[in-house]
Amino acid sequence: MYLLIVYDVDVKRVNRVHKFLKSYLHWRQNSVFEGEVSKAQFNEIKTSLKDLIDETRDSVMIYKFPSKKYVSLYVLGIEKNTIDFIL
Amino acid sequence: MYLLIVYDVDVKRVNRVHKFLKSYLHWRQNSVFEGEVSKAQFNEIKTSLKDLIDETRDSVMIYKFPSKKYVSLYVLGIEKNTIDFIL
Repeated sequence: MYLLIVYDVDVKRVNRVHKFLKSYLHWRQNSVFEGEVSKAQFNEIKTSLKDLIDETRDSVMIYKFPSKKYVSLYVLGIEKNTIDFIL
Repeated sequence: MYLLIVYDVDVKRVNRVHKFLKSYLHWRQNSVFEGEVSKAQFNEIKTSLKDLIDETRDSVMIYKFPSKKYVSLYVLGIEKNTIDFIL
C-alpha cells in the first residue's frame, strides 16, 4: 500500500514527527511524507503517531491507496525532494 | 478525477493560492486542498497555479487519482475540515 501523510503539528512536536516518519517514508515537502509500506508498518505508523502528537491540538492526515499506480503526481515550481515518481 | 493538492508557497503568495484553490476544491488543512474535478478544471488549475506562484521558489504537488474510491483517509488528532470522506 502507498501512503501520503500530511500534517499540521505544533512546533514543539514537529521535529519528532518528522524524525519518526523519515524512518518509514520519503520526505516530499514541508509536512509531507510519502512511500510504500506494508500493513504492519501502516499500523505501526498510526499507533506511534498517536503517541507523538497531541490529539487535541495537532492534525495528521494519512491518505492510503492500494498502490502507487493509482496516483499521478504533477509538480509545479521547485521539486523539494525527487522520489522516482514524476510522470 | 480526484485531486489532492499540497503546497509550500512563499507567504507573499500563499493567500492568493488559497483563495484560488478554494474556488475549485475543499480546504482540508493548512496548505492542503482536495476534491473531485473535471479534466478541463484540472487543466485550468494547473495553468492558473503556474501564474500565481513563483516557480523558482514555490512548490505545488498535485496528486491525481482516477477517483476518490482509490483513496482512504485516516485522520489522527483534530479534523480541521470534515469532508464526507472518512472511513
